[in-house]
Amino acid sequence: MRIGVLTAGGDCPGLNAVIRSVTHRGITGHGDEIIGFEDGFKGLLEGRFRPLDLNSVSGILARGGTILGSARLERARLHEAADNVAALQADHGIDVLIPIGGEGTLTAARMLSDAGMPVVGVPKTIDNDISATDRTFGFDTAVTVATEAIDRLKTTAESHQRVMVVEVMGRHAGWIALESGMAGGAHAILLPERPFDPADICAMVDQRFQRGKKFAVVCVAEGAHPIEGTMPYGHGEIDPYGHERFIGIGTRLADELAGRLGKEAKPVILGHVQRGGVPTAYDRVLATRFGWHAVEAAHKGAFGSMTALRGNHVELVPLRDAITVLKRVPPDRMEEAESVF
Amino acid sequence: MRIGVLTAGGDCPGLNAVIRSVTHRGITGHGDEIIGFEDGFKGLLEGRFRPLDLNSVSGILARGGTILGSARLERARLHEAADNVAALQADHGIDVLIPIGGEGTLTAARMLSDAGMPVVGVPKTIDNDISATDRTFGFDTAVTVATEAIDRLKTTAESHQRVMVVEVMGRHAGWIALESGMAGGAHAILLPERPFDPADICAMVDQRFQRGKKFAVVCVAEGAHPIEGTMPYGHGEIDPYGHERFIGIGTRLADELAGRLGKEAKPVILGHVQRGGVPTAYDRVLATRFGWHAVEAAHKGAFGSMTALRGNHVELVPLRDAITVLKRVPPDRMEEAESVF
Amino acid sequence: MRIGVLTAGGDCPGLNAVIRSVTHRGITGHGDEIIGFEDGFKGLLEGRFRPLDLNSVSGILARGGTILGSARLERARLHEAADNVAALQADHGIDVLIPIGGEGTLTAARMLSDAGMPVVGVPKTIDNDISATDRTFGFDTAVTVATEAIDRLKTTAESHQRVMVVEVMGRHAGWIALESGMAGGAHAILLPERPFDPADICAMVDQRFQRGKKFAVVCVAEGAHPIEGTMPYGHGEIDPYGHERFIGIGTRLADELAGRLGKEAKPVILGHVQRGGVPTAYDRVLATRFGWHAVEAAHKGAFGSMTALRGNHVELVPLRDAITVLKRVPPDRMEEAESVF
Amino acid sequence: MRIGVLTAGGDCPGLNAVIRSVTHRGITGHGDEIIGFEDGFKGLLEGRFRPLDLNSVSGILARGGTILGSARLERARLHEAADNVAALQADHGIDVLIPIGGEGTLTAARMLSDAGMPVVGVPKTIDNDISATDRTFGFDTAVTVATEAIDRLKTTAESHQRVMVVEVMGRHAGWIALESGMAGGAHAILLPERPFDPADICAMVDQRFQRGKKFAVVCVAEGAHPIEGTMPYGHGEIDPYGHERFIGIGTRLADELAGRLGKEAKPVILGHVQRGGVPTAYDRVLATRFGWHAVEAAHKGAFGSMTALRGNHVELVPLRDAITVLKRVPPDRMEEAESVF
Repeated sequence: MRIGVLTAGGDCPGLNAVIRSVTHRGITGHGDEIIGFEDGFKGLLEGRFRPLDLNSVSGILARGGTILGSARLERARLHEAADNVAALQADHGIDVLIPIGGEGTLTAARMLSDAGMPVVGVPKTIDNDISATDRTFGFDTAVTVATEAIDRLKTTAESHQRVMVVEVMGRHAGWIALESGMAGGAHAILLPERPFDPADICAMVDQRFQRGKKFAVVCVAEGAHPIEGTMPYGHGEIDPYGHERFIGIGTRLADELAGRLGKEAKPVILGHVQRGGVPTAYDRVLATRFGWHAVEAAHKGAFGSMTALRGNHVELVPLRDAITVLKRVPPDRMEEAESVF
Repeated sequence: MRIGVLTAGGDCPGLNAVIRSVTHRGITGHGDEIIGFEDGFKGLLEGRFRPLDLNSVSGILARGGTILGSARLERARLHEAADNVAALQADHGIDVLIPIGGEGTLTAARMLSDAGMPVVGVPKTIDNDISATDRTFGFDTAVTVATEAIDRLKTTAESHQRVMVVEVMGRHAGWIALESGMAGGAHAILLPERPFDPADICAMVDQRFQRGKKFAVVCVAEGAHPIEGTMPYGHGEIDPYGHERFIGIGTRLADELAGRLGKEAKPVILGHVQRGGVPTAYDRVLATRFGWHAVEAAHKGAFGSMTALRGNHVELVPLRDAITVLKRVPPDRMEEAESVF
Repeated sequence: MRIGVLTAGGDCPGLNAVIRSVTHRGITGHGDEIIGFEDGFKGLLEGRFRPLDLNSVSGILARGGTILGSARLERARLHEAADNVAALQADHGIDVLIPIGGEGTLTAARMLSDAGMPVVGVPKTIDNDISATDRTFGFDTAVTVATEAIDRLKTTAESHQRVMVVEVMGRHAGWIALESGMAGGAHAILLPERPFDPADICAMVDQRFQRGKKFAVVCVAEGAHPIEGTMPYGHGEIDPYGHERFIGIGTRLADELAGRLGKEAKPVILGHVQRGGVPTAYDRVLATRFGWHAVEAAHKGAFGSMTALRGNHVELVPLRDAITVLKRVPPDRMEEAESVF
Repeated sequence: MRIGVLTAGGDCPGLNAVIRSVTHRGITGHGDEIIGFEDGFKGLLEGRFRPLDLNSVSGILARGGTILGSARLERARLHEAADNVAALQADHGIDVLIPIGGEGTLTAARMLSDAGMPVVGVPKTIDNDISATDRTFGFDTAVTVATEAIDRLKTTAESHQRVMVVEVMGRHAGWIALESGMAGGAHAILLPERPFDPADICAMVDQRFQRGKKFAVVCVAEGAHPIEGTMPYGHGEIDPYGHERFIGIGTRLADELAGRLGKEAKPVILGHVQRGGVPTAYDRVLATRFGWHAVEAAHKGAFGSMTALRGNHVELVPLRDAITVLKRVPPDRMEEAESVF
């Protein structure tokens, strides 16, 4: 078989592990030919690709980023691709396409699949918000980075009697905040799934100070937001260039808490460190397994599907199931977290 | 409720996270009274315990080891305990016992449960070999430590053209070797589940050298063993004190490979670093969830059960199911690993 | 001897290692009595202290923060203290005071020393900007944390073809930016010691893109600033509460570069993670040595002095020498860094 | 200038950082041509080298090992090289040779230098035992790895009431044991510089147990040895192949302590993990500076010299000074360490 692989969407630790695994399994398991498209779907459309052999994926298992690059593609060009699936496939001579990506990529993958391209998707997102799989690779690394930051911030907060507000990634789902908050022992965890009242956080801080604990750490997902009317609406400010500048919830909440509590409250915005660099062992294993199973699926002709973790097994699920519902943090998971604040 | 908690068996990162979680959930969720028995079942039998409140579990979430200590207990004394369950329970006034431990501990827990003690078990083992749960806490930390070691050893092996043999824990099941070998990109993984032939490893090394790769890393579980007749039987040597000294498989295999290949082959025995120290974020979350659910189980009267991870959910399973079959690495998991050597 | 120890100023990994070392060396080496004042000079003035023995410093060597706490004190109250040195010393019965702190603390220490208090200072600052010592503890940890972040950000930048601007600590001296920038392999390092022209950074980025490197990482100290007239002056914006909000150089520079280059440019502000948490081995050793030598100095009557690293030796220097000149990054160190961009 | 660079001797984190720095400084600072000899002096003798440009050293700053490889060379062949220095230099057209290595390499470098080859050496050894420089790169990484292991082992030892014996590298000098023992808070540190009496260690352990501390950690350099007559002489045992097998001091000491104390005592032999993998920020900076200064020295014609750290400065010292005296741990450094046991 001639297998085309590409990575699309935001960065995610583990992408290279999938590329390596697809290449190894294809070549040593089946005698396949593997090509890698550069910069995601763009490379597919523009015919930019390179052959991948064992040497070209040597040493990349633990490397962050993606050796194939990734880039955004306008939706119009994707539709164009879908309209020319047969030609595209013929041009590159590929028997199957393995796109590795998040919700947007998988939607595009489904579009191509529906148009007749043989596709096996591999889901990736540090946000862990894809319903069809128990976990996605990249998530464990993001949680680990955020937890290490909270570990460090706690000692500082404790020594200096202040409130620290740590903003982690998660625009629509609060998984990173939930798990890094639990692992780091944050005293409040704020998620997009449930609007918060800053008064509740102040009450928690006051209680802690009364118990003799002179600090608190709040872990907030970037997509969390206050109950309407409880905090000034966060219009972006106007910067020196005349542009509106977006002020994230971490900074806004720290300001709000400082004002209400009359105590020091400092924001820390973790940002892109969560999505780059060496993947954790967990993510390397999961990514490697996904790559292996994607190749097997290709050889079984299980097109239009996607790899998914279910318990300890990697299974195949239809691409259409993967992207219909965002996996959000359910109430019982929040309840578990709350009791150990 | 008055809840007694204890930790028994070998060390395992995450024990303190369970103790903290039981204490928090019991006290803040239910108004329970929590006591911790010292040194495992010994403390239970000898009446050594201390009350646990929020302050006594403050700052232990990320700490390795167990604040309650752990010790071995002879089987005879356990039987004695089982014979006096009613008295023991009355003496300490506990409404439920939450023992945290591995196979031996859970067997003891079941014995007490069968004798009438209200028990909710929490499984722990870095070996990940308990059938009833998808994963155990401690395992991810052990894999992470082993993977970091393999990462380091690979660059050394590569620069100096040698074979490194890394021995990791796993007497009866090879999960740590499997996952750290995959995550570290080892070129052979040897498990207790499948006897190996050193000739196969030599063939792999030779092939790598022919491909221009002048090194190889072998990850071997301490319980792995050669196919009979392929290697000299590893009688322990006699040490200067006249005692037989056990020589582990890592050292023996490195000797064997050096002899067969005529190349440098060095063993590294990771040992106890795999089971101590700061737990990973994954293990802290899982341990915290197990503690939470154990308390809930106690309040629901679900005695004779054990917490277990199933997919993303923590469920309760009967203690008797937990300990009947050792969870070993199945053939399909080995196959996944082999293709990326 | 009765030795009083206190920690003052901002957080710095290694403070606990000094406290532990002073306690151990005093008690086991000299039979001293050790007391720890709480919250820095505040505790000294308010008579809040606790005895320290081997058990009270057990397990703190690797812990971030300070078990004694730290707090700001108004200058007026310090003068008051200086005016009552004899009474203060008599009240607490201390034979020597060992204050651990940065420039402000050492200035206060000198004031008390000049007023007659027997003082031996221990310098600490993550900024490494005290002239009298080759290095300060805390600095290595800060550099390590910043380097790990740059390592992670590089893979993300590379995969997604963007410029990352990492803002690290260093208001008056650029040591953290210099060393983390060198260690992380940043492509530009901007220090308070030398105003920069954003046009130079754009030129560097353009050159890299022409060489086929589709990303760049800029490491900027929080105290770095542009040559006058090269960038809009960074008035803080007005936040929703009507307060002026300070916008740091990292964010401003990323905006500027994005505008000039027409490429994505993202800021990451590391903030307080640099000054909390587990100290590196280097910092633990240096902090331990400083504590040891401070006690020796006390027993030799070398008051009015401060411990300092000179080459491999810990020496004593007069407090007055310690705080006169800020140690800034000299031009030759910048030249070393520039050649490996 | 045409600069030849090579790496020789055992592995050491930071080698690639030197290679990268030499290449960058040579090319961008002076327009030099850089070639890298493969496998140390072997490549020099056999004419195996490759040109190094900015792209060939891209991404290696944080990578362990050496991209040039390293191999042992018999002394006879080195003498042969020294006898043919003019021909060698003419063959490769190099104006200067920059060998990066430890004591053996620097001795060879001096031999070539004395024979007329323009040489600037760069010292490397994880053992930190070269007199002429305050520190060598690689050492900080080794200490960091060993300290992390001790951190992990302490919690395990504490929970399970046992003595752990950690064997670290250091055949002739005990620097790694000294600093990792101090940083990890070991309760005894045993160095080649001072023979130990196992009775003293037993006394320390007994005292700790009496104080209620039910564990101890001993950090022992591989080259440490008991005072004659205090322990059975460690003849290697005979292995199943009939060869004598060397049993290291860590294993022997653990056996001895277990026997004398009647308590569990376990050895952990860290081995090669100490010398591979990602270098610490400290080592990357030092290695980068050494490379930079070696190129500058070449352009100044300062042949027969070696880079050395003195305080915060990198200076040049004559090669002959570098290798005459091994830098061993002096008594005052041992005294500092002992007081915090």
